[in-house]
Amino acid sequence: MSATLRLHSYWRSSCSWRVRIALHHKGLPFEYVAVHLVKDGGEQHRPEYREKNALGMVPTLEVTESGTTRFLGQSLAILEWLEERYPQPALLPKDAYLRAAARQMAEAVNSSIQPLQNLSVLQYVKGTLHGDDKAWCQHWIGRGMAALEQMAHKHAGRYLVGDEVTLADACLVPQMYGARRFGVDPSQYPTLLRVEQACAALPAFQRAHADAQPDAQPTSR
Amino acid sequence: MSATLRLHSYWRSSCSWRVRIALHHKGLPFEYVAVHLVKDGGEQHRPEYREKNALGMVPTLEVTESGTTRFLGQSLAILEWLEERYPQPALLPKDAYLRAAARQMAEAVNSSIQPLQNLSVLQYVKGTLHGDDKAWCQHWIGRGMAALEQMAHKHAGRYLVGDEVTLADACLVPQMYGARRFGVDPSQYPTLLRVEQACAALPAFQRAHADAQPDAQPTSR
Repeated sequence: MSATLRLHSYWRSSCSWRVRIALHHKGLPFEYVAVHLVKDGGEQHRPEYREKNALGMVPTLEVTESGTTRFLGQSLAILEWLEERYPQPALLPKDAYLRAAARQMAEAVNSSIQPLQNLSVLQYVKGTLHGDDKAWCQHWIGRGMAALEQMAHKHAGRYLVGDEVTLADACLVPQMYGARRFGVDPSQYPTLLRVEQACAALPAFQRAHADAQPDAQPTSR
Repeated sequence: MSATLRLHSYWRSSCSWRVRIALHHKGLPFEYVAVHLVKDGGEQHRPEYREKNALGMVPTLEVTESGTTRFLGQSLAILEWLEERYPQPALLPKDAYLRAAARQMAEAVNSSIQPLQNLSVLQYVKGTLHGDDKAWCQHWIGRGMAALEQMAHKHAGRYLVGDEVTLADACLVPQMYGARRFGVDPSQYPTLLRVEQACAALPAFQRAHADAQPDAQPTSR
């Protein structure tokens, strides 16, 4: 029984990027549907998109199967669904404690770093609070990545958890891009940098990269 | 093979509370280790705690088994580990799409609401940016819970996903407490309110409640 997959994505969204890595890693064909997060105040806020994703966030994975279409949101929930539905090649280790370690590192990015560098949050920090959004980002990204480096020390082999790619790597790579974008020097995190380089050699990560997407733009920031 | 469980927790931490719900739901005995997030600048920042949890956050689940002790962090990673290790009573539905829905709602709380009401973020908003931390909370909690209400419309039965408790409920209940604490009126979210009431009737949720913990204090805010 095969499902048709469409990914609602924005090229530079780190959460979309994670899911692109998983799809390419598992060799799953999918249609790319660009959602422009900035143009006209953000296409993610349009009612027709909110029908698919109540929070108005990317990504959304649209799955059509046996005539029924479903919309899955939240990148880590999508990664877990993909792992259950298409278990090979895996994105989680076999050992239960290593699975917990991979999920812990993924969540460190997903819940302790990325939400604070999210576009809507930066708009509030700058627009409503008249705060320094760059200093804000550097504070939270710096805190989170220092902790991630410490976790990586314990668990990393070639990748973040041992020698196989996991969903922790799918979260790390877009986060490293985000760190540079917001002026955080990644050389402070040698283990993370080494893992990022190992991932960059893999075709799945190359195909999932922001700059390789159909809606990629010349970077201005 | 049995494991000894110790939960490093703070009574009012919503992330600790999620894990307490899961432990009680599954009938697992555990030792409660209080980590005071405010006293002396926060015990979570002490080096001996950071050894267990690099981000300096609660909860941490300490698992001792066959003479080895491991420290698991990030509440959703802990919930997934508990679900894998102690599958019954379950916290995830059997159907793959409903599992995705439960995880999506859990992540809406975990990554799109809670990180923005986290103590350290509020301290930065108020202390560094001189912003109104209450307005900040109301903005983000309001946005997130409105979306969660919309998701619940689609999936809720007695609980957030159908008629069985899932990890989405374990995330919802502490979030409702957080909403009230920060001045958000939960009557705007009738489905969430109804599910919260259904959960409140269950012994596991009663035992996990903030006020039932050994380190609970009279609320001042």
